[in-house]
Amino acid sequence: MRGAKPVEWTGEKLRILDQTELPREVYLELSSPEEVAEAIREMKVRGAPAIGVVAAYGFALGALKLKEKGAFALSELRRVKELLASTRPTARNLFWALERMMRAAEQASGPEEIVEEARNIERETRRADELIGENGAELVRDGMRILTHCNTGALATGGEGTALGVIKAAWRKGKKIFVLATETRPRLQGAKLTAWELLREGIPFSLITDGMAGYFMWRGEVDCVIVGADRIAANGDTANKIGTYTLAVLAREHGIPFWVAAPTSTIDLSLPSGRDIPIEERDPEEVLRVGSERIAPQGVSVKNPAFDITPADYISAIITEKGILRPPFAESIRKLLEAT
Amino acid sequence: MRGAKPVEWTGEKLRILDQTELPREVYLELSSPEEVAEAIREMKVRGAPAIGVVAAYGFALGALKLKEKGAFALSELRRVKELLASTRPTARNLFWALERMMRAAEQASGPEEIVEEARNIERETRRADELIGENGAELVRDGMRILTHCNTGALATGGEGTALGVIKAAWRKGKKIFVLATETRPRLQGAKLTAWELLREGIPFSLITDGMAGYFMWRGEVDCVIVGADRIAANGDTANKIGTYTLAVLAREHGIPFWVAAPTSTIDLSLPSGRDIPIEERDPEEVLRVGSERIAPQGVSVKNPAFDITPADYISAIITEKGILRPPFAESIRKLLEAT
Repeated sequence: MRGAKPVEWTGEKLRILDQTELPREVYLELSSPEEVAEAIREMKVRGAPAIGVVAAYGFALGALKLKEKGAFALSELRRVKELLASTRPTARNLFWALERMMRAAEQASGPEEIVEEARNIERETRRADELIGENGAELVRDGMRILTHCNTGALATGGEGTALGVIKAAWRKGKKIFVLATETRPRLQGAKLTAWELLREGIPFSLITDGMAGYFMWRGEVDCVIVGADRIAANGDTANKIGTYTLAVLAREHGIPFWVAAPTSTIDLSLPSGRDIPIEERDPEEVLRVGSERIAPQGVSVKNPAFDITPADYISAIITEKGILRPPFAESIRKLLEAT
Repeated sequence: MRGAKPVEWTGEKLRILDQTELPREVYLELSSPEEVAEAIREMKVRGAPAIGVVAAYGFALGALKLKEKGAFALSELRRVKELLASTRPTARNLFWALERMMRAAEQASGPEEIVEEARNIERETRRADELIGENGAELVRDGMRILTHCNTGALATGGEGTALGVIKAAWRKGKKIFVLATETRPRLQGAKLTAWELLREGIPFSLITDGMAGYFMWRGEVDCVIVGADRIAANGDTANKIGTYTLAVLAREHGIPFWVAAPTSTIDLSLPSGRDIPIEERDPEEVLRVGSERIAPQGVSVKNPAFDITPADYISAIITEKGILRPPFAESIRKLLEAT
């Protein structure tokens, strides 16, 4: 992304842009797996692919620390893995990255090789973003008015982004597009992060509240919906930021294509359907407060699922780095992953 | 409502609960039509029926002031009407109440009779609420989990409420219900006002963000949706708080009944369909700020329609003080209004 570096490995530490502080640009230097776990849990870094990259570096930091203490051993590294895996339950990329790191650790003679694997994961994630952008931009027609949800840009991946990466790629190819960005309550990633990225890129857009999406579709002012994914089951059912399912239902009702953009590392073949994906329930305070402002009376009970499931039936295409998948997804996903 | 008095005529002034200050209970004394117009515009009082009642008293205050100044004349009263009518464009009850006040003024020999007409409007609005509650409670089955949007309670009408009035009536009849209340961005009437009323009434509920509605329907945790209305066209198309249409689409997708509760004063026979209802676009700051907290970077463009249109096709029933209307609404509305 132009200017800011959301995730950067300095050789010894992990430097991240604290996404809870934006639009103020505050960087954090993380030097232990505990600090990385905390940053993921507190959503100082978020977005499924970025969580994968950062967790990989957290694991590498653990390996470096253990070496320093003379305690470099697989059993210790397994504890580092468990710590990082316990931060958030839904995003597939977290577990995918940690499993890769653990396999690398099993082969490695020292922490340097483990750090190298984290760098590989980062490089591959960036490269996947580029290819997702290229593939997805083919779907975007000149003049399209695109609705997107949450943040799926550079901040969410460390590269160019998934859904927002497609939007940027189409824009850079000269397509005249217009974006409607949902604010994405409760954490407001649309208002805070996507708006910030779109402004930097110069892409014309308007911010709307989540409840406005249906109205603009009803008015005929939305031509497609693009969202990211936190986990995709073997049949194509997709977990993504809460509110995504509602947009998918609205899109189908209005005959609007609904596209999911995600790297194949988000696909979890071990889960047959979306019903099997664990949905994180987060702190009620996220709903009850906006910054320092409390929005509801004392004593109010709150539900705060962070994700929802969009059944594959509602999805028109899944844009990956390896190509665009079409329904029936159970088949197209299997074929794609078998072929590679 | 137990305890608080959202709207009260003191004999000379209009005392209202400032709804922008809740849960702090701050009362305002309004003594001129200008002050009333300001309170409506700033949403210190809101909700279609309450706006109607308050505008009627604003008109009455105008009549009293004109009398004081020795300028009591129909032409002056017409200017008072225009001032009050210019505050908000969507709610039918505002215009309905002002037209009634103007007709009363044409017959009146002095301001006392005009005040009396405002009191009639208030009494009728309260009585309509009671009957809407009674009629609607018939539809609510024991154990139902009810989703509602925005605030449609005592604060919205001055009586017991429309949609929330139905919920309260069912609860008071001993039905074990559970409410999911959407926070209703941007103004958060669900989080601030509905939560406050439900707490006072002791009705069990959870607060959710607007984007969560689909998820809870998908989980099978919603049995019906009840909302209010700001204007109902002759064919049953309904303007209501932004986000309502999205809930209606979701409800139909899940086979969940979708009920609108409103007094017949909300029906506008002069408009054939919802496409003809003017939708108010409000200040972008409502989206960009939550209290003192700014949620998006500088330079962001915002859309802020305050209402949307739910086509009659999505509505299972319209609950009025004169009975429950069923589709086809063009016919049932016409019959109901002809019969009375």
